[in-house]
Amino acid sequence: MNTNIKSLNKLVNVLSKLPGLGYKSSIRVAQHIIEKDNIYTNELLEIIREAKNKISKCKICYSYTDNTHLCDICDDVYRDKNTICVVEKPFDVFIFEKSGYHGLYHVLGGLLSPIDGVGEEDINVNALINRIKNSEAKELIIALSQSVEGDATTQLIAYELRNYNIKITKIARGIPVGASLDLVDETTLNSAFIGRLNVNL
Amino acid sequence: MNTNIKSLNKLVNVLSKLPGLGYKSSIRVAQHIIEKDNIYTNELLEIIREAKNKISKCKICYSYTDNTHLCDICDDVYRDKNTICVVEKPFDVFIFEKSGYHGLYHVLGGLLSPIDGVGEEDINVNALINRIKNSEAKELIIALSQSVEGDATTQLIAYELRNYNIKITKIARGIPVGASLDLVDETTLNSAFIGRLNVNL
Repeated sequence: MNTNIKSLNKLVNVLSKLPGLGYKSSIRVAQHIIEKDNIYTNELLEIIREAKNKISKCKICYSYTDNTHLCDICDDVYRDKNTICVVEKPFDVFIFEKSGYHGLYHVLGGLLSPIDGVGEEDINVNALINRIKNSEAKELIIALSQSVEGDATTQLIAYELRNYNIKITKIARGIPVGASLDLVDETTLNSAFIGRLNVNL
Repeated sequence: MNTNIKSLNKLVNVLSKLPGLGYKSSIRVAQHIIEKDNIYTNELLEIIREAKNKISKCKICYSYTDNTHLCDICDDVYRDKNTICVVEKPFDVFIFEKSGYHGLYHVLGGLLSPIDGVGEEDINVNALINRIKNSEAKELIIALSQSVEGDATTQLIAYELRNYNIKITKIARGIPVGASLDLVDETTLNSAFIGRLNVNL
């Protein structure tokens, strides 16, 4: 919408370009900011500025860190150095941390997608290969989304590392814990059949 | 989610409290801000700061303005001073401006809602009554949402102005232009019947 207030148009416009914010949400956020007091706005601006200034990427695994060089996980001598879990986005690391996984990570920062112009050189695959060369890791666990892009990226990594002495696995697809069977899609059901396990007594 | 990065937690937390942003959107926005360059972030912060500093409320109608005293509409001698359109939110003014309405506005800034603790004194009703006392307006068009709160607020305004020499109307409820009948809810259909018009040849 174009109002007669230039600064308001600019605000709605910049907000509407944030991911996940539609046009209506951006108007609600703009109203929220204008209606709140100055203390709130200053705090909001300071939090954004501080996060932007303090957070950088780990020089080894490319996940977020507020340290200057390495993230807490890469810097932790007690982590299991035998496994590296490959994920797409920095936030995926925090999700896996809740699962109890205690190995290392590697954040690709994207997935292969020729249609969007994302090639091998745009994601941290070369850094991963160099890392494996000089690493003691015995298993690479690929934990990417099950999509054309995720599968292509998984294949690329497996191909590039075919001559290295490292086991390459990918996380299991199947029925989510607690999910009712009739709510699960066919592709997931199929993956669950393929990945079936022996029942041990 | 609690990560081990304090500034990141604070960012996700403040974003998730913005209206319309769920937890997942706030993570996407946080990632967007961290991944973009500093120029982008500085521009975003500057746009928020500028909007916050420049935009205030019109002293007569309470809509947004970047003027110091009156908004462009209240300040415009060519606007039709015979009608005042009562709306809930400042952005409603911009929506009605697109409809071709050429009268004045009055922004309540909320609706009566005892359950949320919003009473008569929390919305700009007294200011509206004082405005009508000293105004040449002949018709007050109430354009609030059709809800318990909207209807209660409409009744309150009509009651408070019962002894003033002003016609009080509310905008018509009916079938949206271009909408198929089977997609319209029953309450709207009922309102459309009640508000039926003569067909003139």
